[in-house]
Amino acid sequence: LKKETVEEKRARLMAAAKASISSAYASDEHSIIQAINSYLAIEKVGNLIYERLEEWYSMYFPELRLNNQATFAKFVIQFGKNKKAATMEELNAVVGDKASEVFRQIRSSIGREPSEEEYGTIRTLAESELSLIDVQSRIDAYLEKSTKKFMPNICYLIDYKIAAEMLSRAGSLNRFATMPAGTIQLLGAEKALFKHLKYGSKSPKHGTLFKLQEMALSNKHMRGKIARVYATKLCTASKADAFTKRFIADKLKQDIDRSLKEIKKKAQP
Amino acid sequence: LKKETVEEKRARLMAAAKASISSAYASDEHSIIQAINSYLAIEKVGNLIYERLEEWYSMYFPELRLNNQATFAKFVIQFGKNKKAATMEELNAVVGDKASEVFRQIRSSIGREPSEEEYGTIRTLAESELSLIDVQSRIDAYLEKSTKKFMPNICYLIDYKIAAEMLSRAGSLNRFATMPAGTIQLLGAEKALFKHLKYGSKSPKHGTLFKLQEMALSNKHMRGKIARVYATKLCTASKADAFTKRFIADKLKQDIDRSLKEIKKKAQP
Repeated sequence: LKKETVEEKRARLMAAAKASISSAYASDEHSIIQAINSYLAIEKVGNLIYERLEEWYSMYFPELRLNNQATFAKFVIQFGKNKKAATMEELNAVVGDKASEVFRQIRSSIGREPSEEEYGTIRTLAESELSLIDVQSRIDAYLEKSTKKFMPNICYLIDYKIAAEMLSRAGSLNRFATMPAGTIQLLGAEKALFKHLKYGSKSPKHGTLFKLQEMALSNKHMRGKIARVYATKLCTASKADAFTKRFIADKLKQDIDRSLKEIKKKAQP
Repeated sequence: LKKETVEEKRARLMAAAKASISSAYASDEHSIIQAINSYLAIEKVGNLIYERLEEWYSMYFPELRLNNQATFAKFVIQFGKNKKAATMEELNAVVGDKASEVFRQIRSSIGREPSEEEYGTIRTLAESELSLIDVQSRIDAYLEKSTKKFMPNICYLIDYKIAAEMLSRAGSLNRFATMPAGTIQLLGAEKALFKHLKYGSKSPKHGTLFKLQEMALSNKHMRGKIARVYATKLCTASKADAFTKRFIADKLKQDIDRSLKEIKKKAQP
């Protein structure tokens, strides 16, 4: 065997290191984590822009109440310069069954019309709100596909966006799969847990799992128990997704449904 | 005189109230306040989106350092799918004098290319970053024109964006013009002032005025004095903008320059 020079050795080791970093990033989970973090950032950002847009345009049409970000932005783009010119048909295409209400509000509005210049600015704000909503739905579609493929068991039990957020909190699927149920239950509640440990405030009962639909529908005192049930089954599901790659989630889902029924039964007087 | 019925009286008073609200909003200052608040929100939002974009795309090109949000977004849009195909000329058009550096980095990069699907998502993120930058510059142009017209004296002394922010903090030009210099000095430092009054922490020396270019160029211990000089002259300038409508700011500017020189002279040993 010919002996390597220092230069050759250095080149060989650098190449190996590069290749291993490259392949570590090749896993889908990094993309999912980036996607969910972007999704959550855009959700926040979209709300901020909407607040500004609504406050600004309300100088010109304070009576308008649409309760939908996209509809509001579309209204500003289409009718913001001269709302009185909007016909019932045009309004119908944008605000749907609120058309006649809005039509009446336009007649009695105390708002003037913005100047050409100011309107141009408000309009671009509305356009960027729409484009953010579009980006959000594209990331959503990407997340749905990639997360369901990468963690089929977990996504069978909980919403794929909650699953992606928990993956992001855990750092990787491998770490997720080696966590005890108690840690999974509190993923996303790190701040509250730290406060509890340091200052003795109440211990948190749930983190990201609070976003589950079941939580909103349940009494407050049942939520900790529900989070625990999910965490226990997610613990098993994550091991299947990470290691055995077998689909066992239909069985786990039945277990969850049974446990939830029991919790509700006990809660009744 | 025919006596009004209750109905008629109600209608007359409502119409008068509507008209007075409508005319109160007719002033330019409300638009300026909306515009500067939107500008500041978009600045924040653009940074958030950029952070996400940079972190996500760095999975595929970790060596890239561009230090400019718009250039980074353009790079992702044009070369993000297949960076190796970028010619020197094409790179030159996007990243300018960094082209040869980036060209080399592309050859030695450890990053792979994103999948078609993932790239589609990253690209929309980059596009919305660009659209936010565009909105920001449009609001900026609108602000420059309307603020300089509405507060010519104040805008002669300080940057129009700082002026707009102070107007927003004050609530209206009338309120601004009736504030003592000490209050003007601390506009934008309300939180710190409250902390000072309630908990006895250090009293703030400047609020929004901290954004003045002079502040960044001066020693820390001179900044309170500089803020005071500006606040005193802004106090006079705002009265001219609100009430007398005469242009006196060139004289005030000379006063400021003289005072700043003295402060600097005294600071020297």
